[in-house]
Parts: sequence; structure tokens; C-alpha cells
Amino acid sequence: MPRLTIHRLSMAHPGDLSALEALFEAGTVRADQVRAVIGKTEGNGGLNDFTRGYFTQSLMLMLSARTGEAPGTLARRVPCVLSGGTEGALSPHYLVFSVAPDGGEGETGLALGTAFSPPTPVRDVGRDAQIRAVSDAVRAAMADAGIARVEDVALVQVKAPAPPVGDPGARSADAKVLMALSRAAAAVGVGLALREIAADRGTEAALLADLSVFSNRASISSGVEVTCNEVVVFGRAAHWAAGLVAGVAPMRDVLDLAGVQAAFAAAPGEVLGVIAKGEPDRSGAIRGHRHTMLGDTDLDAQRHLRGALGAVVAAVAGDGRVFVSGGAEHQGPPGGGLVCVFARQAGSP
Amino acid sequence: MPRLTIHRLSMAHPGDLSALEALFEAGTVRADQVRAVIGKTEGNGGLNDFTRGYFTQSLMLMLSARTGEAPGTLARRVPCVLSGGTEGALSPHYLVFSVAPDGGEGETGLALGTAFSPPTPVRDVGRDAQIRAVSDAVRAAMADAGIARVEDVALVQVKAPAPPVGDPGARSADAKVLMALSRAAAAVGVGLALREIAADRGTEAALLADLSVFSNRASISSGVEVTCNEVVVFGRAAHWAAGLVAGVAPMRDVLDLAGVQAAFAAAPGEVLGVIAKGEPDRSGAIRGHRHTMLGDTDLDAQRHLRGALGAVVAAVAGDGRVFVSGGAEHQGPPGGGLVCVFARQAGSP
Amino acid sequence: MPRLTIHRLSMAHPGDLSALEALFEAGTVRADQVRAVIGKTEGNGGLNDFTRGYFTQSLMLMLSARTGEAPGTLARRVPCVLSGGTEGALSPHYLVFSVAPDGGEGETGLALGTAFSPPTPVRDVGRDAQIRAVSDAVRAAMADAGIARVEDVALVQVKAPAPPVGDPGARSADAKVLMALSRAAAAVGVGLALREIAADRGTEAALLADLSVFSNRASISSGVEVTCNEVVVFGRAAHWAAGLVAGVAPMRDVLDLAGVQAAFAAAPGEVLGVIAKGEPDRSGAIRGHRHTMLGDTDLDAQRHLRGALGAVVAAVAGDGRVFVSGGAEHQGPPGGGLVCVFARQAGSP
Amino acid sequence: MPRLTIHRLSMAHPGDLSALEALFEAGTVRADQVRAVIGKTEGNGGLNDFTRGYFTQSLMLMLSARTGEAPGTLARRVPCVLSGGTEGALSPHYLVFSVAPDGGEGETGLALGTAFSPPTPVRDVGRDAQIRAVSDAVRAAMADAGIARVEDVALVQVKAPAPPVGDPGARSADAKVLMALSRAAAAVGVGLALREIAADRGTEAALLADLSVFSNRASISSGVEVTCNEVVVFGRAAHWAAGLVAGVAPMRDVLDLAGVQAAFAAAPGEVLGVIAKGEPDRSGAIRGHRHTMLGDTDLDAQRHLRGALGAVVAAVAGDGRVFVSGGAEHQGPPGGGLVCVFARQAGSP
Repeated sequence: MPRLTIHRLSMAHPGDLSALEALFEAGTVRADQVRAVIGKTEGNGGLNDFTRGYFTQSLMLMLSARTGEAPGTLARRVPCVLSGGTEGALSPHYLVFSVAPDGGEGETGLALGTAFSPPTPVRDVGRDAQIRAVSDAVRAAMADAGIARVEDVALVQVKAPAPPVGDPGARSADAKVLMALSRAAAAVGVGLALREIAADRGTEAALLADLSVFSNRASISSGVEVTCNEVVVFGRAAHWAAGLVAGVAPMRDVLDLAGVQAAFAAAPGEVLGVIAKGEPDRSGAIRGHRHTMLGDTDLDAQRHLRGALGAVVAAVAGDGRVFVSGGAEHQGPPGGGLVCVFARQAGSP
Repeated sequence: MPRLTIHRLSMAHPGDLSALEALFEAGTVRADQVRAVIGKTEGNGGLNDFTRGYFTQSLMLMLSARTGEAPGTLARRVPCVLSGGTEGALSPHYLVFSVAPDGGEGETGLALGTAFSPPTPVRDVGRDAQIRAVSDAVRAAMADAGIARVEDVALVQVKAPAPPVGDPGARSADAKVLMALSRAAAAVGVGLALREIAADRGTEAALLADLSVFSNRASISSGVEVTCNEVVVFGRAAHWAAGLVAGVAPMRDVLDLAGVQAAFAAAPGEVLGVIAKGEPDRSGAIRGHRHTMLGDTDLDAQRHLRGALGAVVAAVAGDGRVFVSGGAEHQGPPGGGLVCVFARQAGSP
Repeated sequence: MPRLTIHRLSMAHPGDLSALEALFEAGTVRADQVRAVIGKTEGNGGLNDFTRGYFTQSLMLMLSARTGEAPGTLARRVPCVLSGGTEGALSPHYLVFSVAPDGGEGETGLALGTAFSPPTPVRDVGRDAQIRAVSDAVRAAMADAGIARVEDVALVQVKAPAPPVGDPGARSADAKVLMALSRAAAAVGVGLALREIAADRGTEAALLADLSVFSNRASISSGVEVTCNEVVVFGRAAHWAAGLVAGVAPMRDVLDLAGVQAAFAAAPGEVLGVIAKGEPDRSGAIRGHRHTMLGDTDLDAQRHLRGALGAVVAAVAGDGRVFVSGGAEHQGPPGGGLVCVFARQAGSP
Repeated sequence: MPRLTIHRLSMAHPGDLSALEALFEAGTVRADQVRAVIGKTEGNGGLNDFTRGYFTQSLMLMLSARTGEAPGTLARRVPCVLSGGTEGALSPHYLVFSVAPDGGEGETGLALGTAFSPPTPVRDVGRDAQIRAVSDAVRAAMADAGIARVEDVALVQVKAPAPPVGDPGARSADAKVLMALSRAAAAVGVGLALREIAADRGTEAALLADLSVFSNRASISSGVEVTCNEVVVFGRAAHWAAGLVAGVAPMRDVLDLAGVQAAFAAAPGEVLGVIAKGEPDRSGAIRGHRHTMLGDTDLDAQRHLRGALGAVVAAVAGDGRVFVSGGAEHQGPPGGGLVCVFARQAGSP
């Protein structure tokens, strides 16, 4: 029976994997048991954020040296979902999810499954083809985890591709819009797979247009360093070792302190990792008062958002090691987002 | 017996005073009773933030049109303390403090006093001369308010001058350092006046060097739009109408949710305004985890800080109209800051 | 017979009109003879650049104090075309164009005419209605100058409105796109009036879509501080005092040193002012080599562009006081722009 | 007799070495003959620019795969001098310097030599110890190249270490100042080795303090990705194949078009690479007119500078692939810098 283990590790810079190396050296984690990595690097989170590619290259090289698999092969097997931008109180860190065989039996616990879509051509980004590819990958990842029912899924984390600027076949000539379309398609793909979104509403026509179409359990990042959709599913499943728990709650806006507290309450125990998504309210106001995130020429709206949302979540956690990602299109209600907390229940190993 | 009134008003842009104009038109506030304005404009908060000068010019023109006083005369009588930068969830707004005669008697209430130091030459910025000038101005403002004891002071808000770059007589050739020295000198001046800082420790040698020297009730901004130190003191005093209350609490770091909540608890009632100061921890870490505010080439450390601190305070307030100012040198403990809440007690007019 | 005079003045900050005040005091320029101001302020040039509004307010107040006209009336009579952003080698400055009666006769010289369109509703920005309004205003300004033939027009400078974010009737929900649409409509309006663009091609469908539709003599800025299209036309006309000359040349790309030199060669004499427009090449490359202006999350493409184009023009001029404005949609060939040099011919007063 | 070859290659992103890989595949360059790489990556050029580390890691991995040497060994043998920041018209690219045996004899040509100082402890950065270490390394690199006389040196390129923030032993607590001190120490070290600077003036006391102490042939970058001083010397030496030439000229300020043109005139032929250094004039003005590079809260002064200087040099070159690096402390006259052009003389292979 498999046991999921979560390690939260700090980095000195985006190429620094020494904390994980130390766990390998100590025998705490085995390189071939690493199933997924989710982390925050200190870039700007946009199209020209290369901290994600740097970290990914460094990780795959290190795993390669220990497993003997080629870095390219590893990159197609182990999702590495990174979000750039540690504005304000946030701290660069990464969560390592590893799965080991375990002697227990008959239990139900937190499960993890992964899947990779086929490579996504630039012309498919933000279109029905990407939506379907993500939806298929979510189902494959659920099967991989052994999660039988969609209601048992706690969170689906996706890293979706952001094509380089200037491709004439792309749905948008604006690189930021294309990144947003990629996130949007992935979120709708998750919502379709989890049956949160009806098939006739979850289409490319709805992307960035009808924000009433959304998933409450999708967390999507996009970046130039991936060319397909990488999917990680978390949820409860039989035949997994007990002890870990995931709590998820929606946030209605970036100031929704109660929403954040609800997610922590839903995952009692020692916090092992926190994932949050949110977005600047497109109406230009929060609770009736104008914000300035969307019209700032010098400071990107997502950098504004991560700094604010990250601080609220980190203040509740008492810890800046929070994965906060902006660009929550179709992920939670418009202007809001969601928080997911991973914790070890009291008395568990 | 005077009555202090606080109005919190929104602006569409830094030259928009229409909300105050409407109060004048309605007779709710009289222009000649405005004693101080404290506000946040949507600039970058740095040396090249001209939103503060724009707002100040617009305010003084409007007051001048109604009072008949020249704008220059008004600017030397009515402190206009602005902090640029409404990162993240913050909303551009301003607090108008007006004082009207009132029929009550024998009460003790929230009092306001103001004072202006003489013009500060560039060579005095960040030196003992500025410290003394601020200290003298604080005592003058206390006398103006009728606050008898230093322990009755809730908050001293100062706007200190930031000289333009390139003056050979300045203590530093670095404009940002000079802005910080000006805030530091003003904070130490407040601490001396309130007897929080011993006379032998509150000297120019301590500025930016010995951060164990600090005031818990000083909130300082600096900017190019002022050439002297403008001081506003709030506190309890006899012979002022009751009904308003100010609560102050220190924050030990930017994640100190309990500290923020303590300030709100200390000022029960309808919140009329919130003032917060904080700074990026100079150690490079918060609660043991590395932050990236101090080494970001693209995003100024104070913009990072305001976005994070502002969101935490705004989440507790449930409202983005919070005055948050970075650069908390010698204002609260190192790496931390303070929060001040103004509220109207239940049942008060 | 009127004589056009051009003064190039520096400012210490966006509210500093002291250099013009000094000219008024000395009697060099009369306030009621100021016909237009074109300047560069040290903002970011984007939607949240309030240095333009601050300068305009300061200018109109000063003119009002000397002419007795209300600031609002002056703002509808004297175009004040500002472009924010003095990146790199650029220096904040403004050109004051004044027209005085003069004893000469029978001459042909550099003429100036102005016109204001009616206020442009948000729903008209970037649509045929704005194109027509600008075209009409250009013809009115030519008539005002007494310029008889379109081929005698050297340059048309327009300040077009940029609506605030969030208006549901706007053609685009993206504030930057809306600013670009406003510039595009004004440029096409100029091209129609100067018969550079055929009537059936100069329509709202072409805006930002068909960049082969352009004017070689249009220079457009857009900003939130104006609500109508302000037009200034320069050209040769009979019955104007001789002595000044304007030279214009297109730039094929931002590195077109020869193009810049051609404009200076076309206006021999003492340089009085320089105006340049340009844009980041939308193909993502300049002369076959990739540039990074369009995909930078931290530094706006127009700030990139102004710093580069401004330095090239300033290096030829040997002077950083160059009006450089990005956003050259439909102004000069795609990826390029234009340069206009004003000079006093040798021997002229 | 060795022959120096220079290839100028483009990259799609900072981890893209495919152009060099193609040269290896084609047999045009042999991996074991690569002696140095100098390049520009599309980061921000500051302390948190990780594009340099990413490129370096990618380069060393690729060389390692072909030479069999460990990446760490290669990194101590092959200098990889990168400057982040391709603002404006600049294009990400790198110069590969390789040296092959050649059948010629008796010639004098462009020579290259390299040397690495011992690791520089944080406490030595910006101090006499670093100055001496660089000076020694320059002499070692000259010997490596066989350059006999200091007047035959054309350019010394150094990559100096920038320690991470927060080290208590560092000469400055300000990360930007520490980067500048490291560049300054390296430049003075070069000037001492080339006998441009007298021994009694080239001391740590002069660093960032006495800018009249400078080298006209030093080009220094600093970054967190190196921990020692990496030195590459170019110059004329006997027993090197003829055909390549290097021209160097000082720039007195960022607008010094004639200075740039002089460097190109000094290296007639097909341009193979261009290296330029410059800095924002610390007086706050260029040729008497105020610039705004040093007081911009949102846009780093070095980003301003590179965009401006890069465009001027690229306009003369007609090509955006120019290595432009800011931070020219003690490199060329104050407020100015230098330009070095590598070219292949007509008729050479």
C-alpha cells in the first residue's frame, strides 16, 4: 500500500536543490520515489521568467544523476509545477511529493496521481483541443491515483504551456493573453473532468469571456518551460496509507480572511504545504473600493496580486512558504480564488 | 469645546478632490475647519512619485478657493501627509480631519494638534538638527492639542522632506538613503519628545545604524513635495468632545495578524481610518524563512512591503482603504511596525 | 503678420513651470500669446501616469493668473500635449509655441494652427466617430493656421483621450489596448485629412489590424488627462514671418540612424525642438534579431522603446531634450516611426 | 601557431545553446577549443537576475557532454562572462571565442588569454584583497596569451563575484552597493596591471569615491553566479594568426556618437562582436540637461542606461547584438564608458 510523503524545502536561488540533495543523501527520500514537485521561484511570474526553467533543469539533472534516467525522460514522467514570483512576505520554496510502498493495509488516505497530455501545438493553446487534452489528462491522473469518484478529488494542479511571442498561428498575438488563455483552457478542462462544469458551457468560446464557468478545485500555472499540460491530482483513495489530509476552501476575494481560515480548519494538524490561487478583481474594485492592480504600467497585475494574496495566506499560516499563483481565470469565483492546505494529522508518522 | 471629525474619502485619481468638495457643498464640513489630511495616492511611493505633489496642489487650491487664503499660506497651516503606493488590495483614499466648536463640556476625547518645523536645509536632513526640529514640533503640536502627558499621545504622524538628488551638502548621495535618513530622524525626534528614547541614544549616529532605538507611536513619510517637517499629533485630552477613539498596537513582523487584530480591538466601533507602518525585515528573513524584498532589481522593496502589509491589515479591516507606509526605520521594532485604528464609539454622533 | 516663436524649457519636476514664469516676467513671452505646449514629463507614460495631469493643471493655473481666463477655458483653447516617460538619456522639458503679431509682410513661414474636437465619449474611442472627429479637427487647425495645401503640413500633433478602466461601453476592456486604439484612431484621422490614407481604408476595422494604413506626419499621444482630441498643426503658410523651419523624416526602425540624420539635415540651423515617434517592432525582431521589448513582465514595452529611440535621436541631437513618444500605431511604417526637427535658420531673429 | 575565432550566436532563451550545439555538430567549432564566452541574457542585470546562472549551467553541461570534463572543472577553466539585460533594441546573444592550432607562422594577430583568481571571500569583495587578486589574474592572462607589453592589451573583460545579501562581513549591507564595489575593485585591479593607474591611487579607499581613478580598457560585470574573478584578456601578440582586429575607444557620455564611431573605425572589416560599458552620469545631468535615471523607483538605473547606450551603439552597428553592460565604475571616465569592436579584416578567413 503506497504512502504519500510531503517535504517543504527552501532554496537559496532557483538553481539550488541542495535541500533535496541532502534528503537523498540521508536516505529520507529516494530519487526514484519522487512523483511531483510544486514550487515557487523568485522570478516575475511572467513570460520572461526563466527561474522556472532553471529550477526544472537543475531538478531533472539531479534526479537523472541518481536514477540513471535521462533528464528528458524524467521531465515527461515527474511533473514540476512552478510559479514564479515571491512578492512581499512569500518565501522561495518547493514541495516534494514522494510515494513509497508501505506495510499498512485496508486504509484510505491522501493519494496522488499524475498524467501528461501530448505536446500542445501553439495553435491549440486556449482552444477546445487544449481543454479536451487537459480533461483527458485529469481522468488519467485520477486513475493513476486510484481515486474512484470526482467528489474525492481535493485539488488538480496543472502546469500548462505558454508559447513564445510571435507565432502567427496563436489564438492571440498578445503574450500575456495567450498565457491567460492557456490557464483558462486548463481550468475548464479540470472542471469538465470533475463534472463541475457542464459540457456545453466548457468550450473555447467561454475562455476569458464567461467567468461564471469555473472549477473550485483547479490550480493552474502556465509558463514557457513546458510544452504539454502536466497534471497532478490529489484526493482521497482507498489503499493509500492514512495520516495526511488536504483541505480546500474558496476565497470570494483577496481579503477573504475567513475563507483562508476555513481551508486551514479543514486540514487540522501540522501544515506541510499551502497552495493558493487568486486574481485581481476585473471590475476594478474590491468590496466597492477601487484597486489599482489592473492599470499599473510599472508593476504587473499578477505581481500585485501575489504580494497581497500571499501575505493574507502567509499571515494565517504564520509562514511565508506559501505557493501563491495569480491568473485564477475560471479557478474559483471571479475576483476570488481558492486555498488548499496539506497537513499531517496528529499522531501520524 | 472642540469636536474632531474624521471623513474617509475615495479619489478617482490623485487630482480628484470631488468627494471633499461634495462635503463642503453639503455643509457637512467647512473648509476653514480642516486641520489635517492624511492620504494614500496611487504612485510608487519613491523619490519620483509626483502623485503626492499633485494631490497637495489640488487640495490647497480647493481650500484656497473657499477660505480666501493663499495656497502657500494654507500649505504652511494644514498638514497634508501623503504616502504614495496602493499596491495589491489597497485603495486610494484620504482622511480629512476637521475640528468644529461644539456645545458639549467637561468631556475628554480624541484631540488633534499640528505643528510645522522651520524649513529643513538639505544639509540638515538626517542629522541632529532635523531630530531636534521634529522633537520641538511634536511638543508644539501636543500643546496645540492640549494633550498634557506624553502617555496620552496615540500617534504622531510626520511628513518629512526628501531632498532632490545631487545636492553636494546632503548626508548621502543616494536618494533612497536620504529619504530613509529623513524618516529616521523624524522618528527619533518623535521618540525623544514622547520620552520613549533616551536623549543620549537618540542622535544622528543612531540613524539607520542602531535600530534598537525606536518609537512605538511614530508614523513617518518622506517626500520631495515638502521642505519642512509637518507634524500631526493624536491623543486623549480634556475639553474635547467624546465619541472618537484611537487604538494603537505594534506589529512584530509583516505576518503579525494578532498585532493587527489587537489594534482593531483597542478601537471598538465603526472604523473611520487605519494607519499602518512596516518595513522589510533587514535580516532578509521573516520567521526564519528568506524573503526577496530587499534584492529585487525590478520591484522596489517598499512596494513589496506595502502590498504585503496592506493586504494583511485590509483583510482584518475588510476594507482596502488603509494608509500603509513603508520605511518604518525607528518606527516600531526592527522588521515590524505598528497599526493605528480610528473609530467612532457606538452611540456617538 | 504673425510670427511663431519656440522656446525649449527645462523643468525640475512635473509641477515646475518656473522657466516659463521667468519668460513671462522678462516680457520675452506674453501669456496670452501662448498657443500650444508640447512636453515630456518624467512619468511612466502609461494609464497611471499622473505627471501629465499635474503639469497641465500647473500650466493652466499659471496662464490663468496672467490672462484672467478660467483654467477650464484655457484648457479648451491651448493644447497641452504631454508624453510621460524620460527613460535613459531623455530630459524632462517642454516646448512653448507662442504667436505674436509682427511687422513683416509678404512672407511665407512656419505656421501653427490648433483645434479641439468635441468631447469623445468612451464608447467612441477607437471607432469611426473618433477618426472623423480628429479628421475634422485637423482641417479646422489647418484653416486656423492658414495652411492651404495638405502637402504643406509638416506635422500634426494630437493628444487623444484614454478612458479609465472598467467602462462597459469601451471597445476594449484592456486599458492599454484602449490607449492604443485611441492613438490609432487619431493617426488614421490625420492620414485621412492629409489625404495620405484613402477613405475606404481609414476605418475602425483597420485600427491595430492593418498597419499598412499609416500617416507619415502624425504624432499622437493618449492620456487620461484629456477627454477630447487636441490638435496642433505645423506647416508652411503664406503671411507668416519667415525664419523657422520644420524638417520631417520617417524612421524605418529604431536603429535607423540615417533617418534621424535626414530629419536634422532637413531643418538646418539652431535646433529649437525635436519630436519623435516610434514603436517596438511587432514581429519581435529588428533587422532579423530578436528583441525583448514585447514580452517583459517588469518593464513596459513603451518604456523600453522610448529609452532606445530617445537615445538614438538624442545622440544625433547631442541633447537629451527630445520629445519621444511610443505607441506609433499607424504613425509611420510598422516597426518604425518619424522624427520632426524645428530649427531657426541662420540669420533669423 | 594559434588562431582565434569569434562566433556571434543568438539564443531563444537563457537556456538555449542550440546555435553552439549546431556549430559543434557541423565541426565548425570543437568543444575543447572553446576558451571563453561573453554574452547578454534577457534578465534584469541585477542581484536577482538568474538568467546568467541558467545560461552558465546550460553551457557547462553541453561542454561537459562533449569534452568529458565535469561541469565544475569546466567552469574553472572557461570564463563565461554574462551581462543580464537586453533593454530596448538589444538582442540576446553570446560571443564564443575559440582557439585552434593553425599552420601559419611568423605572424602577429589578435590573442586571447584567460585566468581565474582564487575564490573571493565575501569579506574581500570591494577591498584591496580583491584589487590585488584581479591584478594578478590580469598578468596571468596576459602571460597565457603571450601578450608582452601592457600597451598591446585591447580589452580586459572580468566577471566579478556579487555576494548574496545579508552576509555580516560584507563591506556594504546594500546588495547593489556591494555589486558596484566588486566591479570597482576589478576595474582598479585591471588599471593597476595595465599601469593606467598608479599604485598609490588604486586602493580600496578610492573605490566609488575617487572616480578620477579609472582604466580605459576594463569591462567588468558582477553577478551572484561566480565566486571568483574570471579574467579574459584580448590584445596583439606575436605568434598568433592574423586576420582579426579589436578597436577600442572611450565614450565621454552616453550620447557620444563620435566615440562609438571611432571604435568602429578602429576595427575595419566585418563586425564579429561589440562590447560597451557605460553608466548614468552621477551628477544627474548629461551635457547640462537633467536625466532621471538615478531617481526612478520603478526602473533600475542600469536598465535605463543599457537601453540608452545599447541603442546608440546598436544604431551605429546596425545590429542589436551588442554586449552592453552598465555599472562602469572606474571603467572609462566618469559618466562615460568605452566601446570595443571585434572585426575580421577584409580578405581574412
